[in-house]
Amino acid sequence: MDDAPRRVRHAEDYVPGEVFELGSKTVTEDEVIAFARQYDPHPFHTDPDAARGSIFGGLTASGWQTALFMMQLMHGGFISAETSLGSPGHDELRWLQPVRPGDRLTARVEVLAVTLSRSRPELGFVKNRATLTNQHGELVYRLVSSAIVKTRRGASA
Amino acid sequence: MDDAPRRVRHAEDYVPGEVFELGSKTVTEDEVIAFARQYDPHPFHTDPDAARGSIFGGLTASGWQTALFMMQLMHGGFISAETSLGSPGHDELRWLQPVRPGDRLTARVEVLAVTLSRSRPELGFVKNRATLTNQHGELVYRLVSSAIVKTRRGASA
Repeated sequence: MDDAPRRVRHAEDYVPGEVFELGSKTVTEDEVIAFARQYDPHPFHTDPDAARGSIFGGLTASGWQTALFMMQLMHGGFISAETSLGSPGHDELRWLQPVRPGDRLTARVEVLAVTLSRSRPELGFVKNRATLTNQHGELVYRLVSSAIVKTRRGASA
Repeated sequence: MDDAPRRVRHAEDYVPGEVFELGSKTVTEDEVIAFARQYDPHPFHTDPDAARGSIFGGLTASGWQTALFMMQLMHGGFISAETSLGSPGHDELRWLQPVRPGDRLTARVEVLAVTLSRSRPELGFVKNRATLTNQHGELVYRLVSSAIVKTRRGASA
């Protein structure tokens, strides 16, 4: 759906099997260090020298920052600000490979299932699998989650 | 373990059933809006007026920011920078109630299981349940995950 990144989508508009290619983002050393200092100060996220001596062999991004890179890219084409109501949580969040400064991450989301709420017809649940792949073709991040999305009825209420 | 927040802990030092009370953090409107603008720009996270008209009835924090508040507090007393090697991911991440500006969140971690790796004796896995509770006693966030932690052997290698 590269041609429709800004279209407003309601729950009914998501189709199981549909794939969203959400573009790429290059990771910088400065943002890795700044983020980790604030939120997740492991030495292998904040200190290049300490990171070289760690099992990672060099600086890596906080996994939480990787999750946020995915969110930023999801807001660019999968999530509609007009209809999204966030998420109740996640069942499977995996950091599969280290993310390093200079990596270029490409985001993809596949719709797994769409459920319209019976008790609350204004809401639907869009179960999806979101992934980030690096420039070497390695999967670095996978998130399976359900987005809560307004139905057409919910949006017009 | 309020008396030992800065002690270096190896995998062997975590005991199933042990509870870490990690203190509190008050959420501000400015940080909620700034974070969401950057990473998760749902209108109910970024715009107080739009949020009032949403199903949330007012501004709420991005769930990812809530997860980072937990991480900050975990670094203050549960995670040892000297021994922690991060996490492979999470199996259960739940945003149970909205987090709002002015909320005071209190963090707690319980150790669920400790497993020392047989194939890599320098590593252990500390499965834990981390929670944030607001000033009304409501559980707002729960994360069940495994921390990868150096054993004493791993730390001296």
